[in-house]
Amino acid sequence: MNSALALDRIRIVLSRTSHPGNIGAAARAMKTMGLSQLWLVAPQAHPSREAWARASGATDVLDAARVVSTLQEALAGTVLSAALTARRRELSLPRMHAREAAAELLRHTAAGEVALVFGNETNGLTNDEVALCGMPVSIPANPEYSSLNLGAAVQVLCYELRIAALTPQPPADPLPQLATHDEVEGFFAHLTRVSTQSGFHDPANPKRLLPRLRRLFGRIRLEREEVSILRGLLTSFERKVE
Amino acid sequence: MNSALALDRIRIVLSRTSHPGNIGAAARAMKTMGLSQLWLVAPQAHPSREAWARASGATDVLDAARVVSTLQEALAGTVLSAALTARRRELSLPRMHAREAAAELLRHTAAGEVALVFGNETNGLTNDEVALCGMPVSIPANPEYSSLNLGAAVQVLCYELRIAALTPQPPADPLPQLATHDEVEGFFAHLTRVSTQSGFHDPANPKRLLPRLRRLFGRIRLEREEVSILRGLLTSFERKVE
Repeated sequence: MNSALALDRIRIVLSRTSHPGNIGAAARAMKTMGLSQLWLVAPQAHPSREAWARASGATDVLDAARVVSTLQEALAGTVLSAALTARRRELSLPRMHAREAAAELLRHTAAGEVALVFGNETNGLTNDEVALCGMPVSIPANPEYSSLNLGAAVQVLCYELRIAALTPQPPADPLPQLATHDEVEGFFAHLTRVSTQSGFHDPANPKRLLPRLRRLFGRIRLEREEVSILRGLLTSFERKVE
Repeated sequence: MNSALALDRIRIVLSRTSHPGNIGAAARAMKTMGLSQLWLVAPQAHPSREAWARASGATDVLDAARVVSTLQEALAGTVLSAALTARRRELSLPRMHAREAAAELLRHTAAGEVALVFGNETNGLTNDEVALCGMPVSIPANPEYSSLNLGAAVQVLCYELRIAALTPQPPADPLPQLATHDEVEGFFAHLTRVSTQSGFHDPANPKRLLPRLRRLFGRIRLEREEVSILRGLLTSFERKVE
């Protein structure tokens, strides 16, 4: 696929950003690398004069940014999503390095839109946000001081995405028909409903059941057909439970 | 060589920086990647509260920064220096990409200190500044908007340097005994003197002679012994001219 087209299919998602200057810096970083889709999840202050000032010549990216209230909305329709996380997490999948993750995201643009999610400056992403994404990513950094500025982190990842887009890729196995984010979410909703009906899941006392299930299914990157099969199975249970 | 030691031998040189916030951002970017040597050439405003605020947890890098008044001083004692430049230049050598340049700089830390120079936010580096460095470098960017923020550019290069430091390198040919920056400058001063005495170079009407000579000798990366030979030759001319 044309590399400009591939970069156009990548959503940079900033979740709950505190400092509007970082939104502008991210827009500028994106445009220098040829990316254009900026999604803002519940930004603390937006629009703002500061973001437009820091965007410098990349105000077109800011003007076109989509503002949504949940990460779910920003991921709707994507075939693969990655989350930048500086911390190891109890429940998460093993993290991929930025370079490898960029190549993997890019490869999947052939199947549809993909997303790369960055958390809040102070707290990063919540475990639930990371769990919504199939692929945790880290930037190799000084273990004694690994706190990249948000705009700088966006710059590094967008740089790796551009390099990946410009580098001829070795022929890979044909892409599996991955289920979209929405299809996977439909499956999780179905699973939650049935396991609640069956008494296995207690919404009043959820423990870590749902995150664990997300981790399990996140790791295998469900194909569309597999989602159909699983939902068929759930429907069959549902009938029994009723 | 130990990768932390190698990163300690890399000078990040910011020339004539306008915005003190960018100095702080550069310090933070460096520390996240394990670099520590920051050199400031004639910064517009330093020290400043803004730089220390933007450095976040990397104030130790700022505290230790060396402030000098010319690029020559910042390069003194280095065995190799690279200059980031977004523009093609009439006289410059072919530019190396960031990834390749990072590996090359790192390789030369085995022989001594190396430098990576970043210009002013608005005007970049002058042709004379680029000519002082043996290696022009570019970050692959969107040809329609290639203007990275200074802190973001420092982040990308330091990231590549860290990756290069952590990546086992294939065995390379033994490093040549490169002349230091000072030795090369001694040679240029000698050459200028002799060619002025000989009437070949007219300081009142210099044309582009000296930059062209810098380009020529910059490209070959003079070895120490070659500088001795050339200076011997110059001395022999000098005697004739007198």
